[in-house]
Amino acid sequence: MEYLTLMSAREAAAAIRAKEITLLELVDACLRRIDEREPTVNAWAFIDPERARAAARACDAAEPSGPLHGVPVGIKDVIDTCDMPTEYGSTIHRGHRPSRDAACVSLIRRAGGIVLGKTVSTEFAMYQPSKTVNPHNPGHTPGGSSSGSAAAVADRHVPLALGTQTSGSIIRPAAYCGVIGYKPTVGTFAIEGIKALASSLDTLGVLSRSLDDLSLMYNVFCGVDLAADPLPAREPRQVRLGFWQPPFGEPSRDADGLRLAITRLRAVGYEVAPAVMPDSFASLNDVHAALMAYEVARNHLYEYEPARRAQMGDSTTAVIEQGWNISFEAYLRCREQTRQAQIAFDQIAQSFDAILVPSATGEAPAGTSWTGDPVFNRMWSLLGTPALTLPVGNGPNGLPIGVQLVGRRDSDRVLLDVARRLERAVSG
Amino acid sequence: MEYLTLMSAREAAAAIRAKEITLLELVDACLRRIDEREPTVNAWAFIDPERARAAARACDAAEPSGPLHGVPVGIKDVIDTCDMPTEYGSTIHRGHRPSRDAACVSLIRRAGGIVLGKTVSTEFAMYQPSKTVNPHNPGHTPGGSSSGSAAAVADRHVPLALGTQTSGSIIRPAAYCGVIGYKPTVGTFAIEGIKALASSLDTLGVLSRSLDDLSLMYNVFCGVDLAADPLPAREPRQVRLGFWQPPFGEPSRDADGLRLAITRLRAVGYEVAPAVMPDSFASLNDVHAALMAYEVARNHLYEYEPARRAQMGDSTTAVIEQGWNISFEAYLRCREQTRQAQIAFDQIAQSFDAILVPSATGEAPAGTSWTGDPVFNRMWSLLGTPALTLPVGNGPNGLPIGVQLVGRRDSDRVLLDVARRLERAVSG
Repeated sequence: MEYLTLMSAREAAAAIRAKEITLLELVDACLRRIDEREPTVNAWAFIDPERARAAARACDAAEPSGPLHGVPVGIKDVIDTCDMPTEYGSTIHRGHRPSRDAACVSLIRRAGGIVLGKTVSTEFAMYQPSKTVNPHNPGHTPGGSSSGSAAAVADRHVPLALGTQTSGSIIRPAAYCGVIGYKPTVGTFAIEGIKALASSLDTLGVLSRSLDDLSLMYNVFCGVDLAADPLPAREPRQVRLGFWQPPFGEPSRDADGLRLAITRLRAVGYEVAPAVMPDSFASLNDVHAALMAYEVARNHLYEYEPARRAQMGDSTTAVIEQGWNISFEAYLRCREQTRQAQIAFDQIAQSFDAILVPSATGEAPAGTSWTGDPVFNRMWSLLGTPALTLPVGNGPNGLPIGVQLVGRRDSDRVLLDVARRLERAVSG
Repeated sequence: MEYLTLMSAREAAAAIRAKEITLLELVDACLRRIDEREPTVNAWAFIDPERARAAARACDAAEPSGPLHGVPVGIKDVIDTCDMPTEYGSTIHRGHRPSRDAACVSLIRRAGGIVLGKTVSTEFAMYQPSKTVNPHNPGHTPGGSSSGSAAAVADRHVPLALGTQTSGSIIRPAAYCGVIGYKPTVGTFAIEGIKALASSLDTLGVLSRSLDDLSLMYNVFCGVDLAADPLPAREPRQVRLGFWQPPFGEPSRDADGLRLAITRLRAVGYEVAPAVMPDSFASLNDVHAALMAYEVARNHLYEYEPARRAQMGDSTTAVIEQGWNISFEAYLRCREQTRQAQIAFDQIAQSFDAILVPSATGEAPAGTSWTGDPVFNRMWSLLGTPALTLPVGNGPNGLPIGVQLVGRRDSDRVLLDVARRLERAVSG
């Protein structure tokens, strides 16, 4: 039955709809995989096998209700569920049970999806690691903050899971764990009922093993079936691809995924040209960090009260304290720089269907006391652009490396089309 | 003791700090006023006099803790409070007690403010009226959705109250009730812990009787004391004022407040020039309505489940159903139009310190089955600009009329400076 846990969400939904498999069989296969692997991987903040089986039986007995009918989904623990604890990765909220579902959870349930459980988040979706490890090597970090979602999908506990990104919290763990991570244009998938980290940056996205599953989630969240209304066919030479090696990070090691992607795309006939960004973009990571910290400080005042503060990790406290040291005037300057950079990038991105950039600083770092560096993610979170990471191979330690595609805001469909082309080029 | 309920928040805080009055005296005066008037006005969703008095005594016994020390504040019932019910104006959430405070409530408590109670919101801060009436004439609407906050401040139950605006929910009720309503640039005051209506538009703001209290709230929410760091002094002729009568609404009646403001400003030496807006701006109200409805539909799916839907008012259901009929492609077109209009308005607004426009369609309409028309507010909510309404007199029915000032995003300080000049011009 191992093939059941290899299925994409779209394959699983089709098989259930065609009555080739029952949802109970699928859920049982997921639960067996979790039983076997969870003691090592620690991807789950909450899972209740009996409840999952009961939901599966009920779903098997019902008529197919939507595009996700019967698909088990992992929900990052910063997202409210009315029937499961939601602890935001913090002992301050231990046992907290929200009174209602987040909008995205309601949409998943309405589409027939099964909420299998809550996946581990770092503390308040920031940088303090939690218990999850990299499923490819438990001595390495899975990345953060969507650690549990990335590990659970990579390790075949579920076909897909929800993640959130404010800094690099979808792209980085997806790249480290060797799965697809997709952060749509900010504001595309509803964030109601997700604990705010930094409200102007918070974005809901998806971790999966199949690009098909991203268009499935478009159907669930936005009511549009991208597969039924494809983009016009184009020859490779008509696709405008760029690449950019940002002037920060450590190019010699980080660029492996980027170089590999460019090589393979060129091998099958694509032109990949350098994209020229303004020098001012070199400061956008700092703008992001300041803007995020300012908002984080205000959004976590309840948790930062003296009585609760001691339950926070040092790296969370550090961001909050950084935020209290940023003046309102400095915050306004960050907002203005962001607006100007968004206008500039919209202009640049009009010349490209997608721009290839590094996903992360190479393979997942050793150790689990650090979730890795969002250096290649911050600026795209700030600009609100869509970003997608795709696995392209393994690095020197045998761990996955990815490449990131970014595009113009609200041109996500074009980005998904390029991702599909890149996937074909990579898989040969 | 009636003078106590006439004090602005800043005056009250100063008097408490100077030990000229105790907080218990102030809270008692507020509670007496509420006792007397609440049976008519119905501004409060929750108030507990004994708890308020206990908080007042505790605060009187403590050292002054911040700029709001001892000031009673009304909190709109869409904003989470961990010690009071938060029902979002809906029987679906009757008795709901959130597990934590919203960021703005934590900031108010940290600054020493007393949460006196929860003020009435229309259902989910949309258009279905609740029990509040206009304190100037109970046969007329107070406006919505920050109905209770506007009525409570106008009727001297509290010196200030929090409101939220997604469409016209601060400016309209403030104008109808004859108080100051201030919607800062979107994203200025933290919205964490406020029930999302349409996430890309939701803005936290303030209703008060004094412009001083807005700078006080800047100190509470943004840690900046505007009074301590004033803008450079300028002669009236150096202040660049514009006015715009939008090409919608009913100019003959609606423009009273606008005309009065221009007349009085000119009388004291200001030049007020017409502001020219692109013809395309005439469609921005429709763009706003569609974008809002799309997001509202997704954000209220939990409440719109068949089991709960029957508890919703017809006008709420209508917005949700409108939203489900808007395609994702149409939503993306709205977002693109918004971005283009924001860039265009930023350009126009650079030539002005503020642009005067109508606040509402004249006086509060008769009847309480409708909260009035946000026709003059929608586009500013869409553009994310700061907006402020100031009372300028009374209309033919003896009810208040206001004028609205709008400015460039993140130029709120300049707008507050113009508001102060206008207030002086109006009061002669």
